[in-house]
Amino acid sequence: MSRIGDENIVTSAASSRRRPESLPQLHSVGRPEKQTIWQDLGHTFKETFFPDDPLKSFKDQPASKKFVLGLRAVFPIFDWGRQYNLAKFKHDVIAGITIASLCIPQDIAYAKLAYLKPEYGLYSSFVPPLIYAFMGSSRDIAIGPVAVVSLLLGTLLSAVIDPDINPVEYTQLALTATFFCWLGFLVDFLSHAATVGFMAGAAITIGLQQLKGLLGIKKFTKDTDIISVLKSVFSQAEHGWNWQTIAIGVSFLILLLIAKYIGKKNKKLFWVPAMAPLTCVILSTLIVFVTRADKHGVQIVKHIDKGINPPSASKIFFTGPYLLKGIKIGAIAGVIALTEAVAIGRTFAAIKDYSIDGNKEMLALGSMNIVGSMTSCYVATGSFSRSAVNFMAGCQTAVSNIVMSMIVFLTLMVITPLFKFIPNAILAAIIISAVINLVDIGAVVLLWKIDKFDFIACMGAFFGVIFISVEIGILIAVCISFAKILLQVTRPRVALLGNLPGTTLYRNIQQYPAASTIPGALIVRVDSSIYFSNSNYVKDRTLRWLADEEELNKESNLPKIQYLIIDMSPVIDIDTSGIHALEDLNKSIQKREIRLHLANPGCVVMTKLHDSGFVDVVGQDNIHLTVGDAVRACNRKILEETA
Amino acid sequence: MSRIGDENIVTSAASSRRRPESLPQLHSVGRPEKQTIWQDLGHTFKETFFPDDPLKSFKDQPASKKFVLGLRAVFPIFDWGRQYNLAKFKHDVIAGITIASLCIPQDIAYAKLAYLKPEYGLYSSFVPPLIYAFMGSSRDIAIGPVAVVSLLLGTLLSAVIDPDINPVEYTQLALTATFFCWLGFLVDFLSHAATVGFMAGAAITIGLQQLKGLLGIKKFTKDTDIISVLKSVFSQAEHGWNWQTIAIGVSFLILLLIAKYIGKKNKKLFWVPAMAPLTCVILSTLIVFVTRADKHGVQIVKHIDKGINPPSASKIFFTGPYLLKGIKIGAIAGVIALTEAVAIGRTFAAIKDYSIDGNKEMLALGSMNIVGSMTSCYVATGSFSRSAVNFMAGCQTAVSNIVMSMIVFLTLMVITPLFKFIPNAILAAIIISAVINLVDIGAVVLLWKIDKFDFIACMGAFFGVIFISVEIGILIAVCISFAKILLQVTRPRVALLGNLPGTTLYRNIQQYPAASTIPGALIVRVDSSIYFSNSNYVKDRTLRWLADEEELNKESNLPKIQYLIIDMSPVIDIDTSGIHALEDLNKSIQKREIRLHLANPGCVVMTKLHDSGFVDVVGQDNIHLTVGDAVRACNRKILEETA
Repeated sequence: MSRIGDENIVTSAASSRRRPESLPQLHSVGRPEKQTIWQDLGHTFKETFFPDDPLKSFKDQPASKKFVLGLRAVFPIFDWGRQYNLAKFKHDVIAGITIASLCIPQDIAYAKLAYLKPEYGLYSSFVPPLIYAFMGSSRDIAIGPVAVVSLLLGTLLSAVIDPDINPVEYTQLALTATFFCWLGFLVDFLSHAATVGFMAGAAITIGLQQLKGLLGIKKFTKDTDIISVLKSVFSQAEHGWNWQTIAIGVSFLILLLIAKYIGKKNKKLFWVPAMAPLTCVILSTLIVFVTRADKHGVQIVKHIDKGINPPSASKIFFTGPYLLKGIKIGAIAGVIALTEAVAIGRTFAAIKDYSIDGNKEMLALGSMNIVGSMTSCYVATGSFSRSAVNFMAGCQTAVSNIVMSMIVFLTLMVITPLFKFIPNAILAAIIISAVINLVDIGAVVLLWKIDKFDFIACMGAFFGVIFISVEIGILIAVCISFAKILLQVTRPRVALLGNLPGTTLYRNIQQYPAASTIPGALIVRVDSSIYFSNSNYVKDRTLRWLADEEELNKESNLPKIQYLIIDMSPVIDIDTSGIHALEDLNKSIQKREIRLHLANPGCVVMTKLHDSGFVDVVGQDNIHLTVGDAVRACNRKILEETA
Repeated sequence: MSRIGDENIVTSAASSRRRPESLPQLHSVGRPEKQTIWQDLGHTFKETFFPDDPLKSFKDQPASKKFVLGLRAVFPIFDWGRQYNLAKFKHDVIAGITIASLCIPQDIAYAKLAYLKPEYGLYSSFVPPLIYAFMGSSRDIAIGPVAVVSLLLGTLLSAVIDPDINPVEYTQLALTATFFCWLGFLVDFLSHAATVGFMAGAAITIGLQQLKGLLGIKKFTKDTDIISVLKSVFSQAEHGWNWQTIAIGVSFLILLLIAKYIGKKNKKLFWVPAMAPLTCVILSTLIVFVTRADKHGVQIVKHIDKGINPPSASKIFFTGPYLLKGIKIGAIAGVIALTEAVAIGRTFAAIKDYSIDGNKEMLALGSMNIVGSMTSCYVATGSFSRSAVNFMAGCQTAVSNIVMSMIVFLTLMVITPLFKFIPNAILAAIIISAVINLVDIGAVVLLWKIDKFDFIACMGAFFGVIFISVEIGILIAVCISFAKILLQVTRPRVALLGNLPGTTLYRNIQQYPAASTIPGALIVRVDSSIYFSNSNYVKDRTLRWLADEEELNKESNLPKIQYLIIDMSPVIDIDTSGIHALEDLNKSIQKREIRLHLANPGCVVMTKLHDSGFVDVVGQDNIHLTVGDAVRACNRKILEETA
């Protein structure tokens, strides 16, 4: 293979040395062939929704093959299932048992966060993981209810229907929201920064709410902001706290935290924190059962239904006033659920080097929740803590989810009645020890270091959640995230370029202090597409550079600026407002006898400049492939004029 | 001046020929000095709000000088006034008289569009132009009420208070909206395309509404959509139409249109259409007065107050339920008013080559409306038709606005009572002939030709206005405009680059079909900043290019891809989600034994890549100044490995 780079410098330089005055232009600025509007729209649609071209493998295949391929595309299990073997199965069984032992106590606890009956948590760990195993593309994710989504659902739903007064309709609304949670999958609304802040805020909110269970308080606020919660806690300090409950709760919480610490210190002992919750549940339930502590004010689960998920399709509100509310709540919960699941999937996929197909994931997560809503499940997604355990336990495929699901099935069929003696305090302790991980101080520090704006978005979400409410926290985070994008588009940088000594390159003089400006020419680069929202700004900013530079030149007796060269490399698109701004700019500088040159406009920009006739206004000769070419052309003209 | 471009090619090429294996790297990718967060914020704030650095001239000046400069900055009249002379004054007087004769009938007509009493139109042509003359920076704009803003105000205000039932509160709300219309100045919400569509839709809506006056219909809908209006017109066809009214209205409308045609054919006869409305008003009023046609069902203005603007500061709602509505309506009307005024100012400034200062214009337009709201004026802005007449009549400075204002003052003091015999039909005819210009079919055709998305935004606004309502039309236009920006940011292009034969340049192979890809390396360019909203898309799209290319290579037995080079030139900014995506991408390709190289990251990106430690992950040596450098480095490594 030839060393293209070096050779070409030589060629072009040699020719430029031989006839420097009439350097042949090897290439003019390209302009792609015009497409019809339908080709254009089709292309845009495909690029917008399918970065990965899902139908590619279907091309030129017979119908039967297409069916098989389609089946495999929707149900990846038919794809990876063919390579499945006993060795993998052994690993999956071990991982499945481990995550089942972790999920059963968590399910019961999280259902309470969503103000649902405890069995709904278990239901949601039975059906959705089964569906996901067939449709999902992650091998490591553990599906089921999660703390943050449960909190979010609980808050949003209880603002519409009081779960204590009207538990039946409340559950129906929860199922409706679950049915529609795929709506939240439609857009990437949340930045990483916003998610970090939101999760930390939600973790603290959830943790504080658990003081209710941990301290045995009976009357407790439904508001989630830190001030209401702390008021609730301390106003009950004298008579509301139950000391037996506190003894059980705090001692087991300490046990759980120690188990967590052991798992963190020695990765091989990951099963210690994984098994700890179930162990604590069993121990504490035995203690309560033996001492009958429930007669001394220790609150217990009391009632939990036996048997698997009852069908619930008929309970979903498809009409009536609650339909819209259900859709809205579902979409909000869906945003969080999807963000979490995809983040988990990608994290582990990157570690094991396989790829997660974004569209298939959405299909899988959406389908499992739609089916879930018809089988008495509430919103399920990927749980970070359980997925990590799944991974460390050596899971190979989504079969570990099937194993977990089967154990939950057996639990529902056989032993749920025994769960009624579980003290609420132990559930609170389990939740607290689970959500602690969601506060990721390291990530916040990194945000501060890397990107102050991201840090602000993170803090906005965090304080929004803990001081106002979870939904306001999300709203703040989304607004800040999008405001940043819009600000950047509305107020792009317009950089001054200079020549890097010894090269034909022109770079931002702020970034490269060695770069020197060219006498007689001003070179600017517009660092954004030019739209209506920034076109006037770009024009004004460029004229200001021009005025500044002319003043400087006057002070130091340098030649007058005769050429304005705009580097269009980062200008990907331009709209009609943008073209008008360029026209205005051109008129303004023409009056001052300054000529406009453009360098390196892209595909779309070039097409539009042609269609609008602006190419003829500037002159085809004044549009160059590189800034270097433009400077050369200007210098040649200056020489010709002085000669 | 040395011919930097050519010489440097020679230098660098010569050195590269001598020792091609160890080409010295002249420059490494720059990383600007770290600024403190306050410096950073201060700089961002300044660049965001003041592209033109308004305080520049204040630097290093004594306090007295600063005061004078400040006075001149806020009141440009003290600046240009010093060069004012009699010759200019003569021109301004002629222009002022011309626009006064045009504005007086228009004012009365437009006030009716806003459901206000006719004298409010005249009030608004007295105070605001005076204020503007002192504060504004355009020399050609003619200030006063305009048709579209009047229609918009009328529609929005009458949805809150019925002007027939409660005219006093209605007027108060109009003044409140006027007081707050500066709020609409804050952001550039409307693209050129949206404005074109909105204006055309509003013009047709206004024109159709005038059928009421032109046909002498008494019962007429307040809805502005085309269907309600046409229903209103034809349901009254049998008994509601007044034939005397139609005779007067239609004949004068034809006269006005002929005058317009004359002015268009021969630019020197611009005064014909300018004087026509007043002439028609005088003639028709005389006819009505002589024939007492008002006794035969021809509707007339009936009542118009004599005397100048009464003070109205106490009438503005600064408290109560109408305050918020007033703010909202004011902001919406302000958006349109500002867009129109700034567009007019810039158009004429470009023709005469002076510059409009965006911030000063906002200050002037805002101040004149605040003062206006306290002196019984409603929202005033720049009128396109009157500004054009002003320009053609040879105005030199904003003094023509003062002259116009004085004539309106005299009119208010002396002759308003005579206006009571003006037939409504002539006002309708004047409005129709004025708004016809707002339908700019040429601009729509150009939009279709240049930018299909802009065309859609334009049509959205147009059909929104004529089929639903003016505010929905604006809303549709704003949404489409912003959706486009967000779509472009969410789904940026990821282009495949190839080498332009005979150069070291790498360009999009779609735009430059001559460009050829480099065996063993894939070069892509990300055409956008990388944010949370596109980071996963960029990653997936890049991996798809990689997969596509690897497949192609396999088919044609080309060497395996060993290097992925990302051209970061258009990547202006990156956030933490973006850095994570790069990290994931790097992990993915490392597993396939592909090395990542970056070319030409900018200031901000380089800083963030450093802070996040990603530079160390990729390796400082693998970040290059140009794609050419990156290719050279990769080729060298390939050679070393084969050697």
